[in-house]
Amino acid sequence: MSRNSIFFLTDYGRRDGFVAACHGVMMSIAPDVRVVDLTHDVPPQDVRHGAVVLAQTLPYLPPCVVVGVVDPGVGSERRGIAVVAGDHVLVGPDNGLLPWAAAAAGGVAEAVELVSPKYRLAGEAMTFHGRDIFAPAAAHVAVGVPVSRLGPAVGAGDLVRLPEPKVRARPGVLETEVHVVDHFGNVALAAGPDDLAASGVGAGQRASIVRGGPAGPDSATEVVVGRVFADVAPGEMLLYVDSHRHVALAVNHGSAAARLGVEPGDQVTIRVLAP
Amino acid sequence: MSRNSIFFLTDYGRRDGFVAACHGVMMSIAPDVRVVDLTHDVPPQDVRHGAVVLAQTLPYLPPCVVVGVVDPGVGSERRGIAVVAGDHVLVGPDNGLLPWAAAAAGGVAEAVELVSPKYRLAGEAMTFHGRDIFAPAAAHVAVGVPVSRLGPAVGAGDLVRLPEPKVRARPGVLETEVHVVDHFGNVALAAGPDDLAASGVGAGQRASIVRGGPAGPDSATEVVVGRVFADVAPGEMLLYVDSHRHVALAVNHGSAAARLGVEPGDQVTIRVLAP
Amino acid sequence: MSRNSIFFLTDYGRRDGFVAACHGVMMSIAPDVRVVDLTHDVPPQDVRHGAVVLAQTLPYLPPCVVVGVVDPGVGSERRGIAVVAGDHVLVGPDNGLLPWAAAAAGGVAEAVELVSPKYRLAGEAMTFHGRDIFAPAAAHVAVGVPVSRLGPAVGAGDLVRLPEPKVRARPGVLETEVHVVDHFGNVALAAGPDDLAASGVGAGQRASIVRGGPAGPDSATEVVVGRVFADVAPGEMLLYVDSHRHVALAVNHGSAAARLGVEPGDQVTIRVLAP
Repeated sequence: MSRNSIFFLTDYGRRDGFVAACHGVMMSIAPDVRVVDLTHDVPPQDVRHGAVVLAQTLPYLPPCVVVGVVDPGVGSERRGIAVVAGDHVLVGPDNGLLPWAAAAAGGVAEAVELVSPKYRLAGEAMTFHGRDIFAPAAAHVAVGVPVSRLGPAVGAGDLVRLPEPKVRARPGVLETEVHVVDHFGNVALAAGPDDLAASGVGAGQRASIVRGGPAGPDSATEVVVGRVFADVAPGEMLLYVDSHRHVALAVNHGSAAARLGVEPGDQVTIRVLAP
Repeated sequence: MSRNSIFFLTDYGRRDGFVAACHGVMMSIAPDVRVVDLTHDVPPQDVRHGAVVLAQTLPYLPPCVVVGVVDPGVGSERRGIAVVAGDHVLVGPDNGLLPWAAAAAGGVAEAVELVSPKYRLAGEAMTFHGRDIFAPAAAHVAVGVPVSRLGPAVGAGDLVRLPEPKVRARPGVLETEVHVVDHFGNVALAAGPDDLAASGVGAGQRASIVRGGPAGPDSATEVVVGRVFADVAPGEMLLYVDSHRHVALAVNHGSAAARLGVEPGDQVTIRVLAP
Repeated sequence: MSRNSIFFLTDYGRRDGFVAACHGVMMSIAPDVRVVDLTHDVPPQDVRHGAVVLAQTLPYLPPCVVVGVVDPGVGSERRGIAVVAGDHVLVGPDNGLLPWAAAAAGGVAEAVELVSPKYRLAGEAMTFHGRDIFAPAAAHVAVGVPVSRLGPAVGAGDLVRLPEPKVRARPGVLETEVHVVDHFGNVALAAGPDDLAASGVGAGQRASIVRGGPAGPDSATEVVVGRVFADVAPGEMLLYVDSHRHVALAVNHGSAAARLGVEPGDQVTIRVLAP
């Protein structure tokens, strides 16, 4: 099956020619395929941020190939892989970048290690697998090369995975961690709507946010539980369910991340306040 | 009438998956339409900057749909709209982002409020109308859905508009405000060539720039009136008419915005100096 | 001969409408040609960085037109040119931006000065040749206008060139300069693998890096000569041959440029250390 688009995510930034060289390689192999930049502004070597962005975006993409390259271990023993999930094929390093996206697309149906020299660029460099291994693999898949031709099968259970973020909900208290911070400073937590329900936090209530574990020394920030930014006055903080079904924190016309001083992985405790 | 391209402007930045999710939604609805990123680096929630960029760019675009999302009021009562202007259809929030572009394309011929559920994404989120409302509307228009089907008509006079920037020209003096600062630090003022003529400022003259009103305490910066950056020595400041027909200030090989310490909306007074 | 893609490089950044206006102009002239953003994040007016990126990228592009605009002298007497090199046509200012790329594509086969008004935008601005001269020229070439129609021939020897970076190798010592610093802080030097061999620096050896000339006062940084980032521990510095065949310096999981405090053009001396 051929696919007529490739979505392309990296941490390459845009000031150098890395991204364009990959575009050129893909266009040369698959001239009729559209290559769409998913993003190239993943923070350098931040595999988790890349994994979150891929998982959040994939449900909105048409059937396509996705090539993701956030690859601090390029040139080491880490494998290159292609993963079939739903209508998508994901291509990239086996370092945890792809499994969350595969799960968002229905789970890993097939995975292979990228070893066939036929689908790599000749004379490949040791430090630019995006151009020399991943982009060619993605382009060949897009024009119809079966994934099984790229190399030997890898068991879904053998793929490298990132640690699952921690969530613990009990009546009145939700302990979770910061999942991702977006461009606007909105803070998505690992918890979802079910966790929020389990903790008894509901619309219109007030809650306190403490950075750190339940016994943490940090001072609390008070928030209103609502649905849209305009539910609080400019400068005030809102707790809501965001557009990717994560519990999230935002400051109306401001940055919750700056206000709270948090970054991905930080632990956060939410407590319902008495009305 | 179908259009074969969509130009896409937001303040989403490029580190997250927001832009790509919108691309995916548009490609799913309109697979044969080309989606071109106009820019996603509008400063967060800076409606005025987005409005200026749209108005400056539109005259150079082929007949197309433009979707613009700079939307601090997402989820509040502000309307979503589609506006027909010249050969273009503009889609976005009704918060002042679109009317200057519509004027640059010949004025508002038709406007509707985006309320038909048929042209939204099912299960839309309260905080991501770009993905769930504006991108689908743009894609449906691009494949030929008449704008009138998207919702009820809105009178052109009922659209939310940004305040018009102030310009006052009299012999020897031009009072105006900073319209936009570009990537290079060039400072476009709200005044145009006619205002410059009315104030008697002409090529080869010297003038003084004062930040603030005519009685302002700020110290004056001296400029030469010219046509191209090379009309002044490196490091010197030039007053010229820019490529969008605005009176502008630039430092040859430098940043006029940094030199003057100005930002959009700041008032500026230009005085002709005796030869 | 028509070409079905245009690669587009500038220092325009992405917050304004400059890039999109050029896209619009090219799409209006050449609606079936794909325009791919090579990069628009060349540091403002940094002709050398743009020249390096073009030269590194061109070997990976399909036959295409490349339009490059890094143009501090816009509006001055500097010429606009189109250069045929290999399967490519390069369009941009005659300020040194294009010749390294032409060399990477096999050398200048033909060059012309862009003077024909027929292939410019009517009413061109003095300060935006990207939109009004270079983009139209590129689009016309892409749809099949012979380069010779754009203006009179220019001799290859008459093109403006950047100074060639200095490299001097002798047994045990390699003197060279910083060629380019990438997004990750990796530092590519002007020297290539042959220079490395001539200086006797080989895999597994240790070497010292001194910023400045051989008698420079700067303190030395010690590096390991290897092939991939994982050849050194996180935080340690590696000397290797990069994916563009330049001798380069990297810090595993870090920034060599920050560690060394160097920027393009800085002189660097590498000395083999006794084992």
